[in-house]
Amino acid sequence: MKKFYISKSKRLRSTPFTSRIESQGVTAYTTYNHMLLPASFGNLEKEYFHLKEHVQVWDVAAERQVQVTGKDSSKLVQLMTCRNLSKAKVGRCYYAPIIDEQGVMLNDPVVLKLDECKWWLSLADSDIGLYAKGIASGLGLQVEITEPDVNILAIQGPKSFKLMEKILGKKITELKFFGFDYYNFKGNKFLIARSGWSKQGGYEVYVENRKAGQSLYDELFLAGKEFQVEPGCPNLIERIESALLSAGNDFDNGDNPYECGFDKYIDIESDIKYLGKKALIKISKKEINRKLMGILIDTDKIEVTEEISLYNSNSVVGDLRSATYSPNLKKVVGIAMIKKEYWDKKTPIELKIGDKKSKGTLCDLPIV
Amino acid sequence: MKKFYISKSKRLRSTPFTSRIESQGVTAYTTYNHMLLPASFGNLEKEYFHLKEHVQVWDVAAERQVQVTGKDSSKLVQLMTCRNLSKAKVGRCYYAPIIDEQGVMLNDPVVLKLDECKWWLSLADSDIGLYAKGIASGLGLQVEITEPDVNILAIQGPKSFKLMEKILGKKITELKFFGFDYYNFKGNKFLIARSGWSKQGGYEVYVENRKAGQSLYDELFLAGKEFQVEPGCPNLIERIESALLSAGNDFDNGDNPYECGFDKYIDIESDIKYLGKKALIKISKKEINRKLMGILIDTDKIEVTEEISLYNSNSVVGDLRSATYSPNLKKVVGIAMIKKEYWDKKTPIELKIGDKKSKGTLCDLPIV
Repeated sequence: MKKFYISKSKRLRSTPFTSRIESQGVTAYTTYNHMLLPASFGNLEKEYFHLKEHVQVWDVAAERQVQVTGKDSSKLVQLMTCRNLSKAKVGRCYYAPIIDEQGVMLNDPVVLKLDECKWWLSLADSDIGLYAKGIASGLGLQVEITEPDVNILAIQGPKSFKLMEKILGKKITELKFFGFDYYNFKGNKFLIARSGWSKQGGYEVYVENRKAGQSLYDELFLAGKEFQVEPGCPNLIERIESALLSAGNDFDNGDNPYECGFDKYIDIESDIKYLGKKALIKISKKEINRKLMGILIDTDKIEVTEEISLYNSNSVVGDLRSATYSPNLKKVVGIAMIKKEYWDKKTPIELKIGDKKSKGTLCDLPIV
Repeated sequence: MKKFYISKSKRLRSTPFTSRIESQGVTAYTTYNHMLLPASFGNLEKEYFHLKEHVQVWDVAAERQVQVTGKDSSKLVQLMTCRNLSKAKVGRCYYAPIIDEQGVMLNDPVVLKLDECKWWLSLADSDIGLYAKGIASGLGLQVEITEPDVNILAIQGPKSFKLMEKILGKKITELKFFGFDYYNFKGNKFLIARSGWSKQGGYEVYVENRKAGQSLYDELFLAGKEFQVEPGCPNLIERIESALLSAGNDFDNGDNPYECGFDKYIDIESDIKYLGKKALIKISKKEINRKLMGILIDTDKIEVTEEISLYNSNSVVGDLRSATYSPNLKKVVGIAMIKKEYWDKKTPIELKIGDKKSKGTLCDLPIV
């Protein structure tokens, strides 16, 4: 595939760590929430194996926060998601589909409850802050909605625990999955969650002080030498195998949360109020006729820049939305939206990649 | 400056013209409304001189449309902008700052009134569709908000008039600036506006049928040979000289429309209702203490990826937000937010670009 440069500008915001990752060898960017998100350090497969064995530090500042504060903050956050947050606890993270009144997906942030009247929505790539502002203005809610200067560093991989313990002490190892707390490093307080966009374990540091964050960044590489630490970024192979869905790739506002497999994050039973609840009740009654599934394809190369139709003979089975070659499975792994009549996984799949025809089989998610 | 690749994915959407511009030699992309926007065909200065003398065809599909239809559509569109649209006419385009309740800039679309209950907001880079959905849900408005599959082709440059006349006939030359109408090409109807993101004259074709649009694209190059037609894209030099402001670069949600020089698009006198009106009235009473101005810098190279502070001795004069070398003026031209005490343009300006110190002078906008 031909490669193209990214044209930088202020509009595609840099992060506090951009100059560091550029000296460390980043080769490609994507953009995410109007910000640069590193996409490669030159060798996706090498980075994949490294992530699964060692530890990486990721500049994921592009996971921007919508901060909602004020008397009506809980009400507003709940209005945007079908997940029941009425019993949400301070110090916990909640994966929460954001939908609109038609019941389709707008985003899938991790929601952090910082205190009774302060929430962060750690976003996938869309301006949910504008959705929040619109609702708040329309309803006259007493809230303040901002994008604070919070820049996330992710520390991911099996050795992330040892590295973070070395820097922050034993206490950080006691943090439970999707819990967060505050930790001190060189006199600065950091909100750290046990989370991250890989299934290899690790943490996300919500950096609120740029200078302190840069100092922590440098320390992670100094202290991390013995753990073979490397700079990295969300890895396409690992995230597809692990079925960490990507908003805008695997689903968008043409899909509802049931089709995305988010059933456990949907509450249509209780009396919580959110936009799109009526639509979801309606959808749940007639049931869905397509859903996201995994796919294994017998080929060694693919680049998905738009939906690729999947066939069985001449019938359309569904469409492929993300895919990449897995050096682990020696096949292309992908995520596809599949019609109900093919969910049994027995149907042989055909698709055309460029001029080449390939065969595949469906599977459950996660793939590995 | 080191260059980086863009990592393509379905999330950074291709356009109906992507394969064409890639065969024609596009070298760099930016992203805009979650879509690829060509940023260079390899030689910014050559493209600048060509645009000012001949005609270019631009793939600006990334200028996405928010379509608002329904009984309350006019009400909703007015709620989002400080420009008085109460007398807006079908067939006319309106440049309209979108603000929030705090009176700060969210976007600066061209608004098209298609009929009494159908509007398009031809967007700069932010998800105003989500803002519209939030307001509509909050107020219970009877509207439908969608992003139709409309992909704009811009035909820009002094010879655009001759080229369009050759393809579409005499009638297209009668279209007035910021007017739009429907024109036929090979049996397909195209909405065409006399507009575009350059000051060199031209049209924007709102392509609603992909195949027909691709056929028109090819015809523009066939028929355009005698006019030296070339593929192109919004040109950084031309747009800065002409003071075509770029949302996210020259202003963002830290700025209000007065500071951006949008006074003539602000109505605080009449009884129209929009979000942020109270805030703008308050701002207008105390007056602004900074505004966007032009700047000429005595150097031949710059890349602005974040605000660059401007000084006079040790005092901060303002910050530079966009800039590039102009082969026309033999200086760097830029757009900067400048404090009131320096508006007289007499202050010598200093700034640091990388390690190098440069001098500059302020000027009015547009620069040329």
